Amino acid sequence: MTVILGIDPGLNTTGYGVIETPVGGKVRLLEAGVVRSQSDMLPHKIREIFDGVREIITTFAPNAVALEELYSHYDRPRTAILMGHARGAICLAAAQSDIPVHPYAATKIKKLLTGSGHAPKDQMQRAIQHELQLPRTPEPPDVADALAVALCHFYHGKVGS
Amino acid sequence: MTVILGIDPGLNTTGYGVIETPVGGKVRLLEAGVVRSQSDMLPHKIREIFDGVREIITTFAPNAVALEELYSHYDRPRTAILMGHARGAICLAAAQSDIPVHPYAATKIKKLLTGSGHAPKDQMQRAIQHELQLPRTPEPPDVADALAVALCHFYHGKVGS
Repeated sequence: MTVILGIDPGLNTTGYGVIETPVGGKVRLLEAGVVRSQSDMLPHKIREIFDGVREIITTFAPNAVALEELYSHYDRPRTAILMGHARGAICLAAAQSDIPVHPYAATKIKKLLTGSGHAPKDQMQRAIQHELQLPRTPEPPDVADALAVALCHFYHGKVGS
Repeated sequence: MTVILGIDPGLNTTGYGVIETPVGGKVRLLEAGVVRSQSDMLPHKIREIFDGVREIITTFAPNAVALEELYSHYDRPRTAILMGHARGAICLAAAQSDIPVHPYAATKIKKLLTGSGHAPKDQMQRAIQHELQLPRTPEPPDVADALAVALCHFYHGKVGS
């Protein structure tokens, strides 16, 4: 049994998805949701993200953390720098629990989930819904993105490596 | 008595400078140095930075942390995003100890230290050396930059606010 935590970092809303992959069995959703940062101050926002992610790690003891890779928002430097702060806090929470962090490019995530590196959002949501046998498409988008990167890590066969 | 911790974040070398500003007295250097990250892995680098900064905070119990502001490296997105990770860990360490974080633009730091927002490096170093009555110019550059932002916060009169 392997537990994968996928995270979609954001300063206001960080999506997370925890999936369980039994050996030879069907992948299944354990929990998904968002960590919301209420504070207006950057350091406190980061603390809220860190505390939220630490709690998820403590609860589910994942074997791996999967994140979108560093440079996916190169075209929007402000977003990328801010997300870097959130991502730093998440990487720290993983490192403190000795959990490896696996980065994946956005195109790779789409390709592994749908067969196309440029799949539109609704196609991605349907792929996640189908794979995890969810009654509806995952919402909000942060949760869908977090589940997508968790499933990507599962498909990529890096589990346990 | 107010203690200011200035930090120059970097993934491999994070400079720090701790200064003490007695009411009505002359500002003086308590300690300066670098936190080096030895690991090749980003999450472990971040952990090393976090642990190092936490130790400095525990030792000196600063009243304020001063950092260069977020967007000083807009022209180099890769550097800026990576620095965002380090900066996130530093902000977290400060927030966990309820220490306010004060960001300053690079031009503001230079202007407050030398009178010119575009002062060259050697002029900045001499200004720091003079202000803190150091026997020589501060080295390496990470230490000089950390002391510069700490002094900037002191000059800016935000101490205790």
